[in-house]
Amino acid sequence: MSIPATQYGFVYTKASGLTLNKNIPVQQPGIGQLLLKIDAVGLCHSDLHVIYEGLDCGDNYVMGHEIAGTVADVGPEVDDWSVGDRVAAVGPNGCGNCSFCRGDAENVCKRAFGDWFGLGNDGGYQQYLIVQRPRNLVKIPDNVPSGIAAASTDAVLTPYHAIKMAKLTPASKVLIVGAGGLGANAVQIAKTFGAHVTVLDKKDKARAEALKFGADAALESLPAHTEAGSFDVCFDFVSVQATFDICQKYCQPRGIIVPVGLGAPKLTIDVADLDLREIKILGSFWGTTTDLEEVFELVSKGIVKPNVRSAKLEELPVYLEKLKKNEYEGRMVFHP
Amino acid sequence: MSIPATQYGFVYTKASGLTLNKNIPVQQPGIGQLLLKIDAVGLCHSDLHVIYEGLDCGDNYVMGHEIAGTVADVGPEVDDWSVGDRVAAVGPNGCGNCSFCRGDAENVCKRAFGDWFGLGNDGGYQQYLIVQRPRNLVKIPDNVPSGIAAASTDAVLTPYHAIKMAKLTPASKVLIVGAGGLGANAVQIAKTFGAHVTVLDKKDKARAEALKFGADAALESLPAHTEAGSFDVCFDFVSVQATFDICQKYCQPRGIIVPVGLGAPKLTIDVADLDLREIKILGSFWGTTTDLEEVFELVSKGIVKPNVRSAKLEELPVYLEKLKKNEYEGRMVFHP
Amino acid sequence: MSIPATQYGFVYTKASGLTLNKNIPVQQPGIGQLLLKIDAVGLCHSDLHVIYEGLDCGDNYVMGHEIAGTVADVGPEVDDWSVGDRVAAVGPNGCGNCSFCRGDAENVCKRAFGDWFGLGNDGGYQQYLIVQRPRNLVKIPDNVPSGIAAASTDAVLTPYHAIKMAKLTPASKVLIVGAGGLGANAVQIAKTFGAHVTVLDKKDKARAEALKFGADAALESLPAHTEAGSFDVCFDFVSVQATFDICQKYCQPRGIIVPVGLGAPKLTIDVADLDLREIKILGSFWGTTTDLEEVFELVSKGIVKPNVRSAKLEELPVYLEKLKKNEYEGRMVFHP
Amino acid sequence: MSIPATQYGFVYTKASGLTLNKNIPVQQPGIGQLLLKIDAVGLCHSDLHVIYEGLDCGDNYVMGHEIAGTVADVGPEVDDWSVGDRVAAVGPNGCGNCSFCRGDAENVCKRAFGDWFGLGNDGGYQQYLIVQRPRNLVKIPDNVPSGIAAASTDAVLTPYHAIKMAKLTPASKVLIVGAGGLGANAVQIAKTFGAHVTVLDKKDKARAEALKFGADAALESLPAHTEAGSFDVCFDFVSVQATFDICQKYCQPRGIIVPVGLGAPKLTIDVADLDLREIKILGSFWGTTTDLEEVFELVSKGIVKPNVRSAKLEELPVYLEKLKKNEYEGRMVFHP
Repeated sequence: MSIPATQYGFVYTKASGLTLNKNIPVQQPGIGQLLLKIDAVGLCHSDLHVIYEGLDCGDNYVMGHEIAGTVADVGPEVDDWSVGDRVAAVGPNGCGNCSFCRGDAENVCKRAFGDWFGLGNDGGYQQYLIVQRPRNLVKIPDNVPSGIAAASTDAVLTPYHAIKMAKLTPASKVLIVGAGGLGANAVQIAKTFGAHVTVLDKKDKARAEALKFGADAALESLPAHTEAGSFDVCFDFVSVQATFDICQKYCQPRGIIVPVGLGAPKLTIDVADLDLREIKILGSFWGTTTDLEEVFELVSKGIVKPNVRSAKLEELPVYLEKLKKNEYEGRMVFHP
Repeated sequence: MSIPATQYGFVYTKASGLTLNKNIPVQQPGIGQLLLKIDAVGLCHSDLHVIYEGLDCGDNYVMGHEIAGTVADVGPEVDDWSVGDRVAAVGPNGCGNCSFCRGDAENVCKRAFGDWFGLGNDGGYQQYLIVQRPRNLVKIPDNVPSGIAAASTDAVLTPYHAIKMAKLTPASKVLIVGAGGLGANAVQIAKTFGAHVTVLDKKDKARAEALKFGADAALESLPAHTEAGSFDVCFDFVSVQATFDICQKYCQPRGIIVPVGLGAPKLTIDVADLDLREIKILGSFWGTTTDLEEVFELVSKGIVKPNVRSAKLEELPVYLEKLKKNEYEGRMVFHP
Repeated sequence: MSIPATQYGFVYTKASGLTLNKNIPVQQPGIGQLLLKIDAVGLCHSDLHVIYEGLDCGDNYVMGHEIAGTVADVGPEVDDWSVGDRVAAVGPNGCGNCSFCRGDAENVCKRAFGDWFGLGNDGGYQQYLIVQRPRNLVKIPDNVPSGIAAASTDAVLTPYHAIKMAKLTPASKVLIVGAGGLGANAVQIAKTFGAHVTVLDKKDKARAEALKFGADAALESLPAHTEAGSFDVCFDFVSVQATFDICQKYCQPRGIIVPVGLGAPKLTIDVADLDLREIKILGSFWGTTTDLEEVFELVSKGIVKPNVRSAKLEELPVYLEKLKKNEYEGRMVFHP
Repeated sequence: MSIPATQYGFVYTKASGLTLNKNIPVQQPGIGQLLLKIDAVGLCHSDLHVIYEGLDCGDNYVMGHEIAGTVADVGPEVDDWSVGDRVAAVGPNGCGNCSFCRGDAENVCKRAFGDWFGLGNDGGYQQYLIVQRPRNLVKIPDNVPSGIAAASTDAVLTPYHAIKMAKLTPASKVLIVGAGGLGANAVQIAKTFGAHVTVLDKKDKARAEALKFGADAALESLPAHTEAGSFDVCFDFVSVQATFDICQKYCQPRGIIVPVGLGAPKLTIDVADLDLREIKILGSFWGTTTDLEEVFELVSKGIVKPNVRSAKLEELPVYLEKLKKNEYEGRMVFHP
């Protein structure tokens, strides 16, 4: 594999936002590091939060946090990977040594906070990426294309992690609010856990798709006669006050609400109701390496099919605009 | 035991609030029921919420939900209890047959909602109480006086249930905000679980008492240098926005916040922080029969010592006023 | 419904084994009791253990522990059921008041030990059954025939309970040893939980059926190259030493073995291996009311389809002989 | 710190057993490695299993698996440790990258199997040790002497891990069989979790000590009237058939047995009882890094006080003989 000395990529700075840089040096991997040739990288709403809404993950880094690539070069003391391996990055990029990283909680590693791939640390909106901690890579199954793999690292991983945390079983009655990108994948995953799934979405198309993915019901709004306390677990992929209120009202005693979306910065809870019915609100963030390994098994078996469209990485700015205006559906992945 | 035909008691109606009624009939227990002679009954902040703040648990019932008594008469088909048994009531008064009551969740039984002892259903601010479901009674250990037993059914049971739910261990770093009545008992219970306990309270006396009960630290406010994310579990016995914000800020990634208090009807959460650090907010309500059995073991062994003062039941209105004005400390229990 | 004064049924005594009695009185339900007209009752291997192998559950009772029927009469103080309701019995028949019955463990209620339906207490091998604790009944969904319902109370409930206890998810690699009656249902249930299922069975037909039910692999024996530690959970529906040894060898570190079968009275474990790899062995017994409610949902939806054949109750002795000789497949249910 | 070129140590080979080697080279730490000067190293029964009973952990390595030392030299790319740091080794020496090591299960890491410190890989019966994976070290608190720290890495860590796995609370009734070395520490730990602790031991002195450490009862054998099913959790630090049978008999329905000891290679379980009462048998092995961090907190606070005696490392063969003959009490630690 011939590796160029420089490359192009999209760098974020607080001062200038996201800008194309045509002259980024391609570094050599140091001890314990490797160089990843980016095959596909996904565009995500979180990118909008950073670029346009001031979500602060750091300054001056290459964005792009849904990353699939091929190992192009390997530094000294890297045992687990070889040139040519197809791998995806686990975004939260845990340090590997703290009690969180040892305790199935590497996605909330304190030391890695702000060092996430493409959100603080360099990411995939470029041609080559130095991976400082190759432990945070997962092998892509042979039958999974890079575009699907890239999208799976967030748009599938995030709902998978949330669903696993909520411990769904075939006895679970689940409400999924918002069946767009992540929510649509959540429907497929929740059905794989055997749960009974009701979807709420304003868009006809999203509801039709949810039914196609196995949802037991897909509604514009809950019928007037719906009993308060009808669902064991409510996943809110929108998370504005109105959707959260629906979740709290229709959640069972001892039920769980997971506000996966970040639609509003603040949400207000009814405390007496929360206490009297012992509702649980669980924060959920991205996912772990083990989660991503499990996600790839589901995707490889065809059980979860993320909806992905492709373009060239050069076209990123065009699609960033479109995403801002909500002008396309499914997940965009870019090939450098 | 000679049982009078009528008795006095304090009845709550939405129209008139809490009023003394000197002519309440003493009923005979029906099939499966028993008659309890009230020995002691505790006064609780929740009474204020009902009488003065419109907390709606029903209309036209005898209040008083911290109940210890002696079985005075037993209806047909009651096998488990005999006249003379000293028992305490499990306030949430579960129906006994639903999946909640079978599943260690009788405290959130849907059918019993609004049928709680002294909060919807008749309670202990009278001399004799008909108990419809004697399964919701627990034997009082011989060495536990009735006043202590009455106070234990809420002021100890509620923090015990919350602490058990949070699964404290000797490795837990715990923050307890508010070390008054329930909080003071929470300190003793958390120490029994082996946890490291830091208390926050504005009152010198409460802090002094917390230290006496084994708290590792008792502070007016957290020192400026305290690291965000220092506690595994935060119990908020105040639950106003300012205290909740402290809990969210100083809670670990994957940590737990239990807003036990009902200081504010609504609380606002920072969603991005909740998600990115996977904080859990757990509602907690009163406790179960099994919890109360365990509480009585701790109290009987002297491990938890609730602070209780006594008066005659006739004096209830006086102390209701005092409680409203925060003019006394510890728990008041009344003897009819 | 006209209720006869006497009926026929099969009574077990230690002295005489199982014998037909044509003159059993049909009792009237007392307070809190109801009378069930038996519609269908299943025959189970446990019956053989009692009749021929000395499993001691008591003396002098009507056997038959897989019971579906219709409420024929209702005693005083029974609120939850009416004449005409189609119901199935939860075999372990918990007392309803102890900490086990409150704590999702009514199937191991100490007081009900030896008071199980058809195993100690009277059961379904008769025309009418007095149910002392109607709380231990579950409504049969309208679209589930009585024969299927009866078989579901054990042949589906038992594997369901074991699988739920083992907390299967779509990430679980499961080994099911023995895919006859309960094992075949276990395959269907484990697939509903999303797990990857490998079946071991010596019989061609059982393996063929397992594949039809969705097993990912069905083998006569594990291939020589199978890595030790390949499965997260091993359900042993045979539980003789040879099958248990397979389970221990091929169970992952931190994996679970559930010896559901009772093929051998004693099993020997390799302790050093158990400890060094932190294997867990979990006893599993029948199921709870909540479990049976969940089972009926799965059966009603057609997700689990127990294989059932019917005969008249008079023919019970014939089929008891056949079962002893392993001469039929599927579950026999009898209609009185 | 001046580091010699050679050192003495005790090497185990299958051919010759444990032999003194006075000419072991002291290596320089490679990339990512460090050199540990051994300050104290404990002698353990497992050493006997290896040397005299054929427990196979590998061939040709320096034994000694309870290790406390001071960092003497640091190879390139080691960030977390500096020369002079006092550290203890986490014996199971997990690889750090597999799903076990990420998932709070590094003690059963498959790749590290047979690569444990002093059991397969080189250990502490020498003056200097190369640590290949410094992540498997834990800082020793300043107020904990090296001898205590060394003993804590197994004799405290092992019971701590077992107790944590069994999730003791102040409501737990615990039976500890065998209150020698590990069992005595188990008593102290279980009391820290708030549990009620009954000890069984044949030796007067062990029972006296158990009572001193807070045991609620210490008996030679359980009284005849003891009810079967009296304990929630039974820790068997002996694990011969007779002690295991006691555990199974006196364990509650849904109770837990942890056979920590390795007294017999095989144990026989009563399967019908295991199933009908849903007993759980949990294998438990050593502990994790997080466990050891928690152990050091307890030891540092004086809550757990391991009983330790010291000698020079040269005297190891003498004490190995004594241990074999059961001629001393407490834990021996050696200083090279």
